[in-house]
Order: sequence, then structure tokens, then C-alpha cells
Amino acid sequence: MTAPLHDARRGTPDTQQGMRRRNLSRVMHTVAAEGPLSRAAVATRIGLTRAAVSTLVDELIRAGLLDELGPERPGRTGRGRPGSALAVSGRGPAGIGAEVGVDHLAVCAVDLRGEVRARAVQWSDNRGRAPKPVTEELAALVDQVAGEAHKAGLRPAGLAVAVPGLVERGTGMVVRAPNLDWRDTDLAELLAGELPVTVDNEANFGALAELWLGDATPPDFVHVSAEIGIGAAVVVDGRLLRGTRGFAGELGHVPVRPEGPKCRCGGRGCLEQYAGVEAVLRAAGLGPGEGRVGLLADRAAEGDKDVRRALRGAGTALGIALTGAVNLLDPHTVVLGGALSRLAPWLLPALERELGSRTARLACGVAVSRLGPEGPLLGAAHSVVRAVLDDPAMVANGV
Amino acid sequence: MTAPLHDARRGTPDTQQGMRRRNLSRVMHTVAAEGPLSRAAVATRIGLTRAAVSTLVDELIRAGLLDELGPERPGRTGRGRPGSALAVSGRGPAGIGAEVGVDHLAVCAVDLRGEVRARAVQWSDNRGRAPKPVTEELAALVDQVAGEAHKAGLRPAGLAVAVPGLVERGTGMVVRAPNLDWRDTDLAELLAGELPVTVDNEANFGALAELWLGDATPPDFVHVSAEIGIGAAVVVDGRLLRGTRGFAGELGHVPVRPEGPKCRCGGRGCLEQYAGVEAVLRAAGLGPGEGRVGLLADRAAEGDKDVRRALRGAGTALGIALTGAVNLLDPHTVVLGGALSRLAPWLLPALERELGSRTARLACGVAVSRLGPEGPLLGAAHSVVRAVLDDPAMVANGV
Repeated sequence: MTAPLHDARRGTPDTQQGMRRRNLSRVMHTVAAEGPLSRAAVATRIGLTRAAVSTLVDELIRAGLLDELGPERPGRTGRGRPGSALAVSGRGPAGIGAEVGVDHLAVCAVDLRGEVRARAVQWSDNRGRAPKPVTEELAALVDQVAGEAHKAGLRPAGLAVAVPGLVERGTGMVVRAPNLDWRDTDLAELLAGELPVTVDNEANFGALAELWLGDATPPDFVHVSAEIGIGAAVVVDGRLLRGTRGFAGELGHVPVRPEGPKCRCGGRGCLEQYAGVEAVLRAAGLGPGEGRVGLLADRAAEGDKDVRRALRGAGTALGIALTGAVNLLDPHTVVLGGALSRLAPWLLPALERELGSRTARLACGVAVSRLGPEGPLLGAAHSVVRAVLDDPAMVANGV
Repeated sequence: MTAPLHDARRGTPDTQQGMRRRNLSRVMHTVAAEGPLSRAAVATRIGLTRAAVSTLVDELIRAGLLDELGPERPGRTGRGRPGSALAVSGRGPAGIGAEVGVDHLAVCAVDLRGEVRARAVQWSDNRGRAPKPVTEELAALVDQVAGEAHKAGLRPAGLAVAVPGLVERGTGMVVRAPNLDWRDTDLAELLAGELPVTVDNEANFGALAELWLGDATPPDFVHVSAEIGIGAAVVVDGRLLRGTRGFAGELGHVPVRPEGPKCRCGGRGCLEQYAGVEAVLRAAGLGPGEGRVGLLADRAAEGDKDVRRALRGAGTALGIALTGAVNLLDPHTVVLGGALSRLAPWLLPALERELGSRTARLACGVAVSRLGPEGPLLGAAHSVVRAVLDDPAMVANGV
């Protein structure tokens, strides 16, 4: 049947005020995606009158969210008084993204135009460290980046933090981050300060980055990434599938061989036992340690037969687990991101052979992310920017 | 971050007209879910003024979608002039649902109150029959049921047809229905008549029935059903997950043992090879044929050891495949529906043991549908009813 016009259960009344807020958002999204645009062009694109759009635009300019670039060349606007091109402000709110990695901390500031305006990285082995000292170091990096953003005329609007672990939906509690050895950690509370804080799984932010910043990313895809374990995130109809508790996307624990080796999750023969970085190192006869993904990529590029065989095995296991995912989700594409994007040349042939032969009728494509390991950090910062575009009235004083 | 107020990419402008249509829908849904209700009670629930609600209600009464039950007892409305309770009309639009089964055709009419007002079933072996004679028989049943609905004062508003096969999203084309031996069949065109026709997979309609009619069904669940093959449908945040082409939910082809027996899908060791009705019959030493689910249930109830062993094996395989689904989707519950609900007593122990030991940290529940084999037919009819509630202006002449 036709898609419902709304979700009646949400219960938010449809008022003039709500309509105005939604239309402010439509203007911001349109200019962000296609600007610079004249008021007339915005009106055409969102289907409102030019007068209605002008009122909305004036509010957004007063709030510092849109800039007027000055009169356009005559002829471009067609008729009437010369239009003035509108652009999203490069001096308005900014999103601060942060990442807690196993071997690094990173922070960046992104403006409403999507440009990275400041960043900071600190390399350190965070495995087994208590959350408090780690978040203290992270907070110092956030202060540094937010300070730079302020100097550039930006107003940080929020902080979003990517972590490698299960994050509870709604509360943002880090329920389990096995590679950091954290459990039930309230990162938002530890980082509480001037900025509102949200916390999410790094694979989720990686997938959102792919959706928002990727080249022609389809609205339905499975994003597979790896740091130590295997992470994944599922995007359906342009929205992240979070699951009841927020734990969706645990591709690493899909059974590949049900009687296979025991996994720390309690299961047996999970994908992580075959395609996790540590499993691949083991299969290649190498020990664990820092920078191992780079080592695997270098050795594979040099033609090391053991490493190539290990990566073929990992690709096969990925293909089997993804066969399940493709049958259940019917995504347009599987995107290999994060550390896997570096190993793609040696994973892909086996992965595509396995997936292709098992799911020929579903014809799901496989692609490699251009964002690579940058995805989660960018996704975090952009999530703050998107929230501003989605509801400009929330950050705009006086709007 | 906060949920976006809207999806800017849809591009539909937010106009007075759109707002009125959404608010008409809110009133209909509220009265359908909680009625009879006074105008004041509706206003409180949807957060609009009593005056605004009265205007909307008057339109819906004129259009024959709501009934005024007469003045309420004094005291119930509190103050002001006595309110009049509103109820969804039992003489308004009706949804016609139809089901093409392997061994039967069924049609029913459901009114806006959700009551089945007419139904017809015809038993026949449809395997390998051409689509045309089958749809001619189905059309005759539809005419019969629609005629009865008309006599009861109802106006059929649409026909929704459930089929056991892959249905293409958007077009409603039956791309593949292996158990009927249909391919690329445009059922909507074959059934074209006075009523608008929609076509969907029977597992999808079964899951929607569970969502709309089940006892406290959560908004995130995986619905598993079986006729000959294994079907499933995934509901996320109260919406059916359809996938890019409309083929999501193919649990039957999730690999259970990657080197297992060949499957007609091109894969190996798919769930259907272990838990499909034909596989269970084979494992129990029984041949294929009609009414085999009933036979399995009867034999299992009598204590037949071969049948019970075969069902335990099927339950184990279901548990392994569902481990993958639970890790990827993090559903609140797995619901066994369709033919599986009859076999649940003998499937469940092995299924729950396998799923529980492999996904302990995700704590997903398992439930058995009360709707059973009725689900897809009811889901189809209710999908038409929901479309009317979602946008009453579309069917209401003069509104």
C-alpha cells in the first residue's frame, strides 16, 4: 500500500510551529546539498512559494546559519529583481566528532558546509586502560579542537563520540567494549561539559559517513569494517538500523561454521574466528600487536603466500556470513570500510566468489569505501551537523 | 542525535493541505485504536485544540468514516456540553485480502474496525498451475466476498494479495514463486478490475498481521513462517524491512552449514535444507504430499521418535540461522508463525537451546504466533484498512 503520511504513534501534533520548523530544515538541507542557490531556486526545489521561502531564509540568515553571497549576475535569475545566492554559513555551528580507538584518540570539527576545520590525533595503546584517564585525554583534545573552531568563528553545537563496542540505544551507555575491556561505561557522563554529548558504535558512525559522504551511496547497504573485531552496520531506506537495544550489525558473530572454534561471545564458529584481524594473523603465522593491518597489507602486497592464503580464508568466511546478511536484508551493496578497505584487494576475490555463487538471484554488489579508517570520526562530527540541519530552530537563538 | 523532524529528501512540501491530511489520519488512528472516544478525549490524545479536532471529526463523519454514537452519560465528559462518543464506522470502506496458497485460495473482507465481515476459501492444488486459471478462480472469490461486503453496507477500497514468493518492491511483480512454479507474473494486471490491487509476499503480510493484531507485539521482531519453504519477514521500528528489491527476509537461504547439501537457490547448506517441511519429512522417513504439516504435528504428538528427532534437527538449524539474524538485527523477539506455529512444541526446545547459548548477551525472546496460518490473509486485508486510516482523504469523497 502507499507509505503512511506519518507515524500516528509518535503522537507529535502537527502544528503551525512544527510545520515552520520542518520547513526551516528543508531550506537548510536544500542549500547544504545544492547551494549556492537563489531564493527562487530554493522555492522551486521544496515546492513552497517564494514569499514563504523568503521569510524562512531571513530567519536563517539572522540566526547565522545561511549567508547571502551578494547579488547574482543578471540573467541567471530570469526575471524580477536580481536574486542573491544563498550558501550555508562557514561561521555558524560546528559538529565536534571524537573517536576512541584501540590505539589512538582523534577529534575533529566540521562546519555546516561539511568541511573539516580543525583536528587532533593522539596515538596511545588504550587496551585495558580505565575509562577515566582515557576520557580525560580525550576531553583535552576536544578542548583543543573546540578552541580552534571558536577562533575560526565557529560555535561547537555538540560532541559525538565513536567507540568500538556495543552502545545501548537511548542511553548511550557503552555496555561492552571488549577491545578496550570496558563494561557499562557512561562515556557521556565522563565527558560532560559545555557541549551535549552523544555516544555511538564506531561501525554505526562509519556507515553514516558512507551514507552522507560516500560517492552515490545507495540508501540500502551493509557496511563492514574491522579494527580488532569485525563490526558492521546496516542502513535501510537511508536510516541506520539500530535494533531493540542498539546492538544491531554484529556481523562478527554470525555463525560461519556452527561447530567451529569457540568465540568469546559464547557462540562457536563466528565470523570473527575466521576474518577478525587476530584470526588472520594467526592463520598467517604472525603474532598480535600494533599496526598489524598495515603489516598484513604490506606482506600481501609483497606476495607473501601465507598472508595471501590467510586473507583468502577470511574473504571466504566473509562471503558466507554476508550471504546470510544479504538474504535477510536484500541490500543494494556491501561496502567494505575501515581497516578492511586496506585489505580489500586480497579479500575481495574469495568474498565475491562465495557471495556471488550463493546469492546469484539477489545480485548484491560489493564496493570498497573511499573513506577508509576516517569514516567513524567523520560520521560522528557530521551527525552533529546533520542534527543542526534537521532542526535549525534548536541551535538558532532568536529563530 | 535527535531523530530528524522529517526526511528532507522526500521533498514533499509541508503545506496546510498536507497538515490537514495528516491530522485527519491522526484522528482516525486514535479513534480506531482507543475508541469510542469523545472529541475532547481525541483532542487531548493528539495534542490539538478541541475546535481543530471538531472540524476534522465533522469532515470524517460526513465522509462516512466515523460514527457519532450519541450523547455520553453526563459526568464522563467532565464539563461543558455533553460529549458524543466517536467510533470508527462499521459501514465505511473495507479492505479485501486474498491469499494464493500452494493448496488453497482464500479471500476476506475486513472493515475499518478490524472485523472480518465476509470470507471464502477454496481448496485446490495450485502447484505448477498457470497463473491465469488460478487468478480467474481467485477473482471469482473476490467478487463473491466483495458482493457480501457491499450487502453489509461496506465499500471495498482495495484488494491486497499474499503470494508465497519473491515480490518486487514498487512494481508488485511476482518475480519467483518456486512452489507455484511462477516467474515474472504480474498478478496485479491479471486481477485488474474495479479495485486497486497490491501484491506482496505472504511472510510480509504475516508479519504485518502480527504487528497490527498480535498481543503486545514489539516494534522490532523477526517473523518466521513456513509453508513448503521457510519464509521470514523483519519488522524494524514498527515498519517492514523490504530491502532494495523487496526480497528481504529470505531466512530460508541463510547458510547453516556452508558445505551442506545443494539448494535450489544456488547455495549450499541453506536453512531450508534442514528445516523446510520437505526436509523434515525426508529426515523423518516420510514422503511429500498434501497436509503434511498436520501429519508431522499428529505424529509428533503421538510420540513418533523419527518425527520428533527430525523436528529437533530442524529446531537446531533454525536456532543457528536465527543466531545470524539476531546478531545482525537485534530484534526484541523471534515470532514463529504460519505452519511453524503448529510444530512449535517440538521445534522450540532445540531452537531456544541453540539460539540462547549463542546469543546470550543479546537476550532475544522467542514467541509463537496466535494468528498461525491465518496471518497472511488477515495482514493483506488489514493493509488496505491501514492505508485508509493512514490517509482518509484518499477514500473520502467530499473530504
